Amino acid sequence: MGVKEKLWILTAQCPSRLGTVDAVTRSLVESENYIVALNSFDDKATGSFSIRVEFRPLGGETSLRQFREILEPRAAKFDMQWQLTEPEHQTRVAIMVSKYDHCLNDLLYRYRTGELAIDIPLIISNHPDLQSLADWHGIPYVHLPVTPETKPEQEAKVWELINEHQCELVVLARYMQVLSPEMAARLDGWAINIHHSLLPGFKGAKPYHQAWAKGVKLVGATAHYVNDNLDEGPIITQGVQAVDHSHYPEDLVAKGQDVESQTLAKAVRYHIEKRVFLHGNRTVVFPD
Amino acid sequence: MGVKEKLWILTAQCPSRLGTVDAVTRSLVESENYIVALNSFDDKATGSFSIRVEFRPLGGETSLRQFREILEPRAAKFDMQWQLTEPEHQTRVAIMVSKYDHCLNDLLYRYRTGELAIDIPLIISNHPDLQSLADWHGIPYVHLPVTPETKPEQEAKVWELINEHQCELVVLARYMQVLSPEMAARLDGWAINIHHSLLPGFKGAKPYHQAWAKGVKLVGATAHYVNDNLDEGPIITQGVQAVDHSHYPEDLVAKGQDVESQTLAKAVRYHIEKRVFLHGNRTVVFPD
Amino acid sequence: MGVKEKLWILTAQCPSRLGTVDAVTRSLVESENYIVALNSFDDKATGSFSIRVEFRPLGGETSLRQFREILEPRAAKFDMQWQLTEPEHQTRVAIMVSKYDHCLNDLLYRYRTGELAIDIPLIISNHPDLQSLADWHGIPYVHLPVTPETKPEQEAKVWELINEHQCELVVLARYMQVLSPEMAARLDGWAINIHHSLLPGFKGAKPYHQAWAKGVKLVGATAHYVNDNLDEGPIITQGVQAVDHSHYPEDLVAKGQDVESQTLAKAVRYHIEKRVFLHGNRTVVFPD
Amino acid sequence: MGVKEKLWILTAQCPSRLGTVDAVTRSLVESENYIVALNSFDDKATGSFSIRVEFRPLGGETSLRQFREILEPRAAKFDMQWQLTEPEHQTRVAIMVSKYDHCLNDLLYRYRTGELAIDIPLIISNHPDLQSLADWHGIPYVHLPVTPETKPEQEAKVWELINEHQCELVVLARYMQVLSPEMAARLDGWAINIHHSLLPGFKGAKPYHQAWAKGVKLVGATAHYVNDNLDEGPIITQGVQAVDHSHYPEDLVAKGQDVESQTLAKAVRYHIEKRVFLHGNRTVVFPD
Repeated sequence: MGVKEKLWILTAQCPSRLGTVDAVTRSLVESENYIVALNSFDDKATGSFSIRVEFRPLGGETSLRQFREILEPRAAKFDMQWQLTEPEHQTRVAIMVSKYDHCLNDLLYRYRTGELAIDIPLIISNHPDLQSLADWHGIPYVHLPVTPETKPEQEAKVWELINEHQCELVVLARYMQVLSPEMAARLDGWAINIHHSLLPGFKGAKPYHQAWAKGVKLVGATAHYVNDNLDEGPIITQGVQAVDHSHYPEDLVAKGQDVESQTLAKAVRYHIEKRVFLHGNRTVVFPD
Repeated sequence: MGVKEKLWILTAQCPSRLGTVDAVTRSLVESENYIVALNSFDDKATGSFSIRVEFRPLGGETSLRQFREILEPRAAKFDMQWQLTEPEHQTRVAIMVSKYDHCLNDLLYRYRTGELAIDIPLIISNHPDLQSLADWHGIPYVHLPVTPETKPEQEAKVWELINEHQCELVVLARYMQVLSPEMAARLDGWAINIHHSLLPGFKGAKPYHQAWAKGVKLVGATAHYVNDNLDEGPIITQGVQAVDHSHYPEDLVAKGQDVESQTLAKAVRYHIEKRVFLHGNRTVVFPD
Repeated sequence: MGVKEKLWILTAQCPSRLGTVDAVTRSLVESENYIVALNSFDDKATGSFSIRVEFRPLGGETSLRQFREILEPRAAKFDMQWQLTEPEHQTRVAIMVSKYDHCLNDLLYRYRTGELAIDIPLIISNHPDLQSLADWHGIPYVHLPVTPETKPEQEAKVWELINEHQCELVVLARYMQVLSPEMAARLDGWAINIHHSLLPGFKGAKPYHQAWAKGVKLVGATAHYVNDNLDEGPIITQGVQAVDHSHYPEDLVAKGQDVESQTLAKAVRYHIEKRVFLHGNRTVVFPD
Repeated sequence: MGVKEKLWILTAQCPSRLGTVDAVTRSLVESENYIVALNSFDDKATGSFSIRVEFRPLGGETSLRQFREILEPRAAKFDMQWQLTEPEHQTRVAIMVSKYDHCLNDLLYRYRTGELAIDIPLIISNHPDLQSLADWHGIPYVHLPVTPETKPEQEAKVWELINEHQCELVVLARYMQVLSPEMAARLDGWAINIHHSLLPGFKGAKPYHQAWAKGVKLVGATAHYVNDNLDEGPIITQGVQAVDHSHYPEDLVAKGQDVESQTLAKAVRYHIEKRVFLHGNRTVVFPD
């Protein structure tokens, strides 16, 4: 069979209305673009429409150009936001970390092997600890220590770096600083955070200690978009694992690292594969 | 929010070709049918196209009539087989059992509560044991004992009953008789069997004993369509559960019953919700 | 191999001290009782010791009698509470329900097949709805409607019935009445409740609606002992299942029923197989 | 609470007989060793006894010395093989790889963070590809290319290296060479291999391609001890993950890497924490 064929991806979203699917699918067939897989969902909770299409342009560049020309006016009528993603597109990702390295290590591995189709122009950290891990992968590591006093200034630098490197996604891979409301607002909807609990349970600090105190038999992790509401951003995916009486808080911290890494990697993959649609505080996710 | 809205379901399949999606989606919009959810997949392994649409006819019966009229000639051009399923449709199911009652009990519970949108005109068994369970649910129970000599005759009766009751699906809920090639051919693609192993591992008799002898740490169950190849029919879904050294073969038999019941119920639900597409020996399944 | 051999079970617990295991194991060997499986755990969080032994009395009644005689004084020195459970013991269980029948149906199935080694002298409900289900299983169904005014009186009757029938365990199988503090105190530690969320997340009413409002991607169920703190009792086990954007609150209610039934059944089985040890608000659970 | 207390581990196994548990537990108490957790199991399938104890020597070295002295003669009477493992013991592990690096990367991460209490004196490979990964972790990488002609010679070198470095465990982390019967015999019971299928299903080459051809909905991985029977060694643990129609063979190869890495890491952890007991072709595993 060979490796999974790389395909073009069309994603679009707009308010719910009759004809949204047809606006997309008719435009594709008229421009000789072959649909391989399609998912659409009309969410009555938010009154929103989401569609994701994997397709193959039979006429190459001509098909793609024609598709854009045909879709544009139709999309406009529906207030439809749409986006084409090239088969070989590598999403530019800035990763922010502190001292924990399990999520970073996992992301770098998936980056290195090409499992995640990403470029990582830089890693930003408020600690110097993970420099050598970044070095080995040949990725610039920017150390920006944060104190209450320097926070605004350092966040400004982070923002500048993200823009300078034209990042399309920011991943908080166990970045242990609370973002200022301004920074959170700037990253709203295009930064992914991993929280080490099944949110909204155990928000805030030391969730494993909270979980242990309650004697839970399952712990988990939540990958969500950053917004201006700490630990309350729209959830992308969640993972879970069983624990028992023999696990003390520090054991949970250790034990939870696998599920954190996997949950974050899954969310990043869903995002870069354009499987996640954000409508207010809710997500529509078309998994593979 | 209220209960999940009951929607019409359109399913269609045909050989892969440009325009298959559009044939369906354009017909829907032209007849004022509102698409709520859509999945399509074009399988290069079998060269086949599958589509499933949940929709709401904005113009009621008129929309539905028009849709049929518009789709018919378009579908014909693609050799497309299509099917409309009413929101309130109850699939007519014949269940066949022997002595084990866990799968039957589970199916009857889901039938009774309406979780599975099915009617069960009759239960057929080669043993009398499960009569009272059928009685309590008010379902006719037909006891057709089978010996090597009477098998052809009894299978003929089964076939007659299935037809007489206009069953759309046959479920072998731990029916412990091997079907004759003729019977298997008749049920090809519209009867679901549950096998208590992760097929193709441990085909044939006593799979838990086989699994135990190999010291496996996971056992499972496989729901598949019946075809003329014993325990080799197209797989719909599989379930799994962990076991350990303390489980002897008879423990595995007991322990496996939950996963068998759940795997079978899931396959039946997928089938009646028109989520399964059969292409040769492969299935395409659009889960919820 | 045959069915899992039924064995005697010794369980004991006491404050942590040197020699607790030996007090039990030496007594067993001296009385010619053969240990088949043993688990012990010394919990530094609560300073408590728990042990569970499955054994076979080689000398029959003599071995058992001697064991009791030998263990008694040794146990006393450790303030050890211990209990012997016969291989054929059927735990006497009172089940309390309201209108939802999925947990009851599941428990009754496992009772009927012998998977759960329980007797059910009676089912108590504040609604008449599940009478026929009880009838079919030949179990007395006591209808005790509850209003704010009659609650004390009805709870008194419940208490009387539980005692009259010498019940060893009370199971709240989706019993939708909040117990009074008095009643909760009486049942403290020997009644199991199923809550339809991953406690302590989504305590109180309508947890699935709460979960939906937060856009979670996992829902779950928690089986816990009743105590005087509503939805805060010691957790025995928890189950989880994935959901997505297509599930509205009522779908979650339906979807969650399987995991509720299974989680409750698992907790009941752990309890009657003497796998759960209660130390304050924490449990030690030795699973199979 | 602090990090999980490091404890001494006593493991022992012998033929089933009355008094095996007591031989261990009495020896521990008499020498003032405090039992924190204990698991024992008497397997009627193999007529064998296994016990694992985590304990704290209250009298330090004296307690340990006394324990050895007291246990020795008692163990001898039962033909009991026993082993003490120090709290800080780092198991010396030789890792063998070919070109796939996901398992190696995962093991090295867990080694680097101390999650796995191992030392890795060397990595042996029949290909040069993973040299730089080894370098970054500061681990010697020995490249021993294998052809049919050089196989005996190279295996002899491998054997020499394993001995020279006093390795206690060999991990075949996707080592793509079939071991000779002689080499397999030498590693019997103390080398762990990861196979990328749910053995005994899909033995031999290209298991994901085999699985795809059968249309399975679950793929998995099996970690097992090497013995002289290819892909038939005693199973330690197995992992599984769901796949669907959209996964072609090469997708399964990619998709399966996570479950392979995790299953292998789990097996290695179980082994070095002395949780696995080998009796003929069966294992007893006491998980945490």
